[in-house]
Amino acid sequence: MQGSHSSSGEQKFEVRRLEISDKSKGFVELLRQLTVCDSISDKDFENRFREISSLGDDHVICVVEDESSGKIIATGSVFIEKKFLRNCGKVGHIEDVVVDSNARGMQLGKKVIGFLADHARSMGCYKVILDCSLENRAFYEKCGFKQKEIQMVKYFV
Amino acid sequence: MQGSHSSSGEQKFEVRRLEISDKSKGFVELLRQLTVCDSISDKDFENRFREISSLGDDHVICVVEDESSGKIIATGSVFIEKKFLRNCGKVGHIEDVVVDSNARGMQLGKKVIGFLADHARSMGCYKVILDCSLENRAFYEKCGFKQKEIQMVKYFV
Repeated sequence: MQGSHSSSGEQKFEVRRLEISDKSKGFVELLRQLTVCDSISDKDFENRFREISSLGDDHVICVVEDESSGKIIATGSVFIEKKFLRNCGKVGHIEDVVVDSNARGMQLGKKVIGFLADHARSMGCYKVILDCSLENRAFYEKCGFKQKEIQMVKYFV
Repeated sequence: MQGSHSSSGEQKFEVRRLEISDKSKGFVELLRQLTVCDSISDKDFENRFREISSLGDDHVICVVEDESSGKIIATGSVFIEKKFLRNCGKVGHIEDVVVDSNARGMQLGKKVIGFLADHARSMGCYKVILDCSLENRAFYEKCGFKQKEIQMVKYFV
């Protein structure tokens, strides 16, 4: 999938896949708005980037870059699970969606979800799923999702 | 992780990873108790088996074989997602858990979940997650899980 450019008023955005140079454009600081994320060394970042990249189209991280500031202001990821059921079907799992708190209200979350869902569909997935808080349900409904099950979690640390 | 043998009354079970020969032991018929799954050709099964196996410990399918009948009577899978957040953390995603309708009440579901959660922990995951129906919440609570978020889905077909 190719990246795309769009604008909202005066601002211009590029929606594309994560690049290794995005570490210096605020990508990790953006993730920190979502959950715990200490600073990551360049080496650890590169190693994880290469691990994810080795999966090719099966694990894609989308970012939105503000072309005026050069900062990453929204992101989300999708990985493709290969199953036996549903006639050897595939499912896209969307994770880690976050929009910079200073960049809300510009439909960037919708752009990220659109990019990730389009990717899952192009990979032949029969569905795409994600887990979210109750407060975010209305946003995902606007993106064409419906509530289905509940998420259960077991923490090890 | 090694497989393990256990017994419940007269029956003996082996809990282990999926093998390609499990197709002839009722593995696909078991999945059909969970959702839509037409018959899969030997070639399609082998291709999907090899794709999943190529991920090594990052995508593991657990099966329980009834040693008296040679049938697969329970299964579940876990795949390991590699993230940047949580200091380049990992999360285990449990999917496609099913126990044969004739083999309920023997704690086989708990054995499968234990196998998959132990695997995720051994891979360094900070948590393991799954989606389930409200009716199955009590079962997963007995396995040490807590309800957290809601699952949203978008179907393509």
